[in-house]
Amino acid sequence: VSDLKKRLISAIVFGPIVVLCFYFLPLFPFFIFIYLVAFFAVCEGLKISEPKMKYLILLSSLLSLLLLYFKRFEIFTLWLLFFSFLSVTLHMLVGRDDSLESPMETLRTVVTNLVTNVFIVLPLYYLYALKELDDIYPLVLLLTVWGSDVSAYLIGKRFGKRKLAPKISPGKTVEGLLGALLGSAVVLTCFHRIVQFGLEFSIALGFIIGFLGQVGDIFESAVKRCFGIKDSSKIIPGHGGILDRTDSFLFTAPFLHAFLSYTR
Amino acid sequence: VSDLKKRLISAIVFGPIVVLCFYFLPLFPFFIFIYLVAFFAVCEGLKISEPKMKYLILLSSLLSLLLLYFKRFEIFTLWLLFFSFLSVTLHMLVGRDDSLESPMETLRTVVTNLVTNVFIVLPLYYLYALKELDDIYPLVLLLTVWGSDVSAYLIGKRFGKRKLAPKISPGKTVEGLLGALLGSAVVLTCFHRIVQFGLEFSIALGFIIGFLGQVGDIFESAVKRCFGIKDSSKIIPGHGGILDRTDSFLFTAPFLHAFLSYTR
Repeated sequence: VSDLKKRLISAIVFGPIVVLCFYFLPLFPFFIFIYLVAFFAVCEGLKISEPKMKYLILLSSLLSLLLLYFKRFEIFTLWLLFFSFLSVTLHMLVGRDDSLESPMETLRTVVTNLVTNVFIVLPLYYLYALKELDDIYPLVLLLTVWGSDVSAYLIGKRFGKRKLAPKISPGKTVEGLLGALLGSAVVLTCFHRIVQFGLEFSIALGFIIGFLGQVGDIFESAVKRCFGIKDSSKIIPGHGGILDRTDSFLFTAPFLHAFLSYTR
Repeated sequence: VSDLKKRLISAIVFGPIVVLCFYFLPLFPFFIFIYLVAFFAVCEGLKISEPKMKYLILLSSLLSLLLLYFKRFEIFTLWLLFFSFLSVTLHMLVGRDDSLESPMETLRTVVTNLVTNVFIVLPLYYLYALKELDDIYPLVLLLTVWGSDVSAYLIGKRFGKRKLAPKISPGKTVEGLLGALLGSAVVLTCFHRIVQFGLEFSIALGFIIGFLGQVGDIFESAVKRCFGIKDSSKIIPGHGGILDRTDSFLFTAPFLHAFLSYTR
């Protein structure tokens, strides 16, 4: 089965399930859904970085998501700091006779925790926070991001010539990026009545979201390339892991949330 | 001149200046003082990590400190996230023909920014926030931490046998750690009337602060050891750099602030 066929079959099977979750789940069940996604995404992230204290980081991320749910941003940032206190202390106590108590291992635990909290937990929280603003927003963002991805893929395949970031993401082209902007602008314009955006406003916002989505993609590629990995996992056939699917929300969800909270 | 002599002379010269700043500066001038300390500390941190986009990270850290000053913790965390968007975009635009656009360089910029923001800017902010709670608190913490350091040094030198974290900080001993706890408890007890703590309360808090200070020290040693550096710079003769002097506040200032805000 070709990669494209796999992608299509996965999209047909998983797409509707995700759409249903995004659209029909009320606020609290949607948070539970996001919580599960965060759980699997962090697990994938930990497989990439391979720190010794995996469970501690997983627990820390799940605690952070709860702190964000209760809007305790100050405690969230304090927890980023105090996690390193905890991890240095544990490395010191546990690792007296083996390799655990090494500067590199200690730093790896601390940095991995920072990265999973800021780049996985925080964006997923904002996907939930969008639902707090309006029931329809997460779905609108999801479809916009999908439109952007599909359009980037098709236009990139057909017209792609100039490499965008050859060392980080060799498959990406400038033409594909333009396709991404176009795709998300088109989808967001289709929705402009439902979400009560103006027409020009929808187009502009679509361009921004398309760009943010592509940069998020490139960022995750850079992380994976540093660790010599192509797909974060094989959970979704043809689509890599959950982390590969959530990277589209990395910058788009927090941006859209901030934008909508400040303008309405 | 021996290292101990250098340390003593520096302490006699710089000690009083720092004490005066901590005690006599009113709220806003104290913030300016903290801002300058943060500036130099971040510069030293950047010398250790050597990312390509130094000025961007320095600007980002100084912006973060302002966000914290205005208690915008949500925007502070969003900025941690969006800095990576900015840096990926810049690496992509600027680095089309040279080594800048590499996954490793991109990640180094992003991670260095996370680390300077969470482990330098955030603790220094809480040193300022202590002054907001009460004029005398930063000085009390400073003297407690100094008492702890001196006592750890003297008791460690005299009785030190069992290594605490041999691979990270070979000079540190369990006996020195106990000295640190004792030293900070003694100093805090001396102040218990001025700061209106109970006696038992001061001793307990002193133990905690002594422990937090030592772990902060070990954490900074781990970071520097990963980069093969002993002192963060030579600004203060015998005492290493500003970063070496601020690591005592890494966990103690946020902890004391959280503790005092929640108990009073």
